[in-house]
Amino acid sequence: MNDLDDLIAAFATFGATPDGGVCRLTATPEDKAARDRFAHEAARRGLSMRIDAIGNMFAIAQLAPESDQAVIVGSHLDSQPTGGRYDGPYGVLAGLLAAEAIGARAAAEPGKARRNLVVANWTNEEGARFQPSLTGSSVHVGALPLETALDLADLSGITLGEALGAIGYRGTDELDLTPVRYVELHIEQGPILEAAGTAIGIVSGAWATRKLSVVFQGDASHTGPTPMPRRRDALRAAARAIEALHDVLDEGAHASAARISVYPNSPNVVPARVQVWFELRHEQQEVVDAMAERFLPRIAAAAEAIGVTTAVAVDERRGPARLDPDGMALVQRVAADLGVSAQVMKTVTGHDALALQKRVPATLIFVPCRDGLSHNAAEYAAPSALANGLAVLTETLWRMVTAP
Amino acid sequence: MNDLDDLIAAFATFGATPDGGVCRLTATPEDKAARDRFAHEAARRGLSMRIDAIGNMFAIAQLAPESDQAVIVGSHLDSQPTGGRYDGPYGVLAGLLAAEAIGARAAAEPGKARRNLVVANWTNEEGARFQPSLTGSSVHVGALPLETALDLADLSGITLGEALGAIGYRGTDELDLTPVRYVELHIEQGPILEAAGTAIGIVSGAWATRKLSVVFQGDASHTGPTPMPRRRDALRAAARAIEALHDVLDEGAHASAARISVYPNSPNVVPARVQVWFELRHEQQEVVDAMAERFLPRIAAAAEAIGVTTAVAVDERRGPARLDPDGMALVQRVAADLGVSAQVMKTVTGHDALALQKRVPATLIFVPCRDGLSHNAAEYAAPSALANGLAVLTETLWRMVTAP
Repeated sequence: MNDLDDLIAAFATFGATPDGGVCRLTATPEDKAARDRFAHEAARRGLSMRIDAIGNMFAIAQLAPESDQAVIVGSHLDSQPTGGRYDGPYGVLAGLLAAEAIGARAAAEPGKARRNLVVANWTNEEGARFQPSLTGSSVHVGALPLETALDLADLSGITLGEALGAIGYRGTDELDLTPVRYVELHIEQGPILEAAGTAIGIVSGAWATRKLSVVFQGDASHTGPTPMPRRRDALRAAARAIEALHDVLDEGAHASAARISVYPNSPNVVPARVQVWFELRHEQQEVVDAMAERFLPRIAAAAEAIGVTTAVAVDERRGPARLDPDGMALVQRVAADLGVSAQVMKTVTGHDALALQKRVPATLIFVPCRDGLSHNAAEYAAPSALANGLAVLTETLWRMVTAP
Repeated sequence: MNDLDDLIAAFATFGATPDGGVCRLTATPEDKAARDRFAHEAARRGLSMRIDAIGNMFAIAQLAPESDQAVIVGSHLDSQPTGGRYDGPYGVLAGLLAAEAIGARAAAEPGKARRNLVVANWTNEEGARFQPSLTGSSVHVGALPLETALDLADLSGITLGEALGAIGYRGTDELDLTPVRYVELHIEQGPILEAAGTAIGIVSGAWATRKLSVVFQGDASHTGPTPMPRRRDALRAAARAIEALHDVLDEGAHASAARISVYPNSPNVVPARVQVWFELRHEQQEVVDAMAERFLPRIAAAAEAIGVTTAVAVDERRGPARLDPDGMALVQRVAADLGVSAQVMKTVTGHDALALQKRVPATLIFVPCRDGLSHNAAEYAAPSALANGLAVLTETLWRMVTAP
């Protein structure tokens, strides 16, 4: 065990599930417990804390008091309902240890640090309790209006603003430093690094993603006596669409239908209204859009054949973002200098780094995880893999805060 | 307007929905309001009230104090989430008015009544909030143990016992009369009487129903980077089964998949566990069972092909019950005497009368409703149709309480 493993284990107790996983949804008591501990760990390392209006937490290491610039390192402490202990906390806690090491090095080499370092915990990265995901980081860069974010409601109708207020994390601070770079360290959540035997993934950009939330509108009637031809079954139409999703996939594409809402969801009422959240992903935006163009008319026709109409309630395009080339080159040099293997790769999924990149040059570093498994209690990354990531992160951040 | 229309309109205010329907789930504040009003209406007609341990309400018209026998007339005041105003309350409120008329007639013809009359409101007939349906009537006849019924939990984990306690309807009384006959008046909820132009349906029995609740077990993983062949998507397996249900139907069968539960139901997690509530219905038990025999292996194979296992969590057979022939013959004579058209028919769906028949000779009377539509806010029965039913019910009950 070392500091990093201890910290990860400590945070895994907040929202621990019997199967060894973590369920720590945004702005729940479990999330509060993790936030409180993060504040405690930051304070005992001499960092000062600021909390903004959407609950983002910024732990500040004042390395260069004369500078109003900062490099931000961070990730998120919220999890999926079936989360593991690494997805998110690894980046926050490695950031904290990197800040500690850099603080000590800066003190030993006075005048070297030219800017400050901030360790961030972004609110609702997962988008499990509140959609859309990447909420805190998107508000931070101005891509999502604060009021819109505070008004996001969970399935019980509780808003993110209310939930943050309830746990005491609807803050009033602003980060009064100018971010000049953002760095995030994360487990890969996919099988590429493990298969290649590479220690570090340097992320060049993201796949394109299209998130389509479709409403199927039928009509309620009794599941018993209603003649079959008269039924307008919205769940059956949704089922046809969930299967059809797999028929429209191009080579190399990923797709999912992972969330469904059924009304009235009573065993004796033909479902009147169903909403399904679909995602289509591919490296290229054109391919994603072409699949969506095939998918939507197809499910509309399959629904219409049984008297059900379809309407697209949400159509969110996340383009194939590119991360900052200078940051990639720096990580490449650091890895080489430390003698750690590295490869350039893309990320399939969203990360706060992608939201940050809209305003701040952002860098995303992956380490391998076992079987590429994530969003699962069995999620696991070896201590040696985590240590490689921390070493590369620390040296990268040091060079960033000391760069001319 | 008459007393019946006024009463039905008054009860439709408890849980009224903006679209003109009713959402009055068992043991909610809306159900309490309807129960309180029923108690009030019974008291002002001189009936005494007893409430049993599962919340069944018995309003007693003591027509023959020397007799320990009773004829029960009743139905239910709970509704589906997308309920109308007739499904259930019609039978309870017509029963109340029939009891009032019979009380007056018995007073005018002393010595004629040989037994008492009880108007019952059975708890959780619909099975919308708690499964199985027909809960109160099944407990009454001993087909469902009281403790099992009290422990039934809704989707929030609240038990029926707790919910009844919270609204003050977990009673301590027993019905201290011996039921000798049960009569229930209900809208048909199907299209047969309307199409035939018949005023009264005399129900001879029920279709066979098989209720199968199937659990699809896959595994959680990230919807983004997880390679498609590695996903074990329980919702996709469920979708295949929902569509497959329609491929196994024999001529004349009805089937539905109307309720689904998905875990973790987060947009970014491949669904790990899904439960679907299926129903198969046909006039003949053998046909129902043959369909189930085709259905279950088929959905298991379709699931296994994508790494998902299936398990039958609930397999409830409701056989093709027959209602009491003497009761049917009596209603037949009453309808003829009153000059009201009647036809013998089956019910596709469950009713408290079917539960009662297990211990007490039971009679079920239908009246037509518009378009056969039910479990829908637009559910409607014409005042003249309702009046026909009330007239037949009243005379039937009079003959039952006065029979030697």
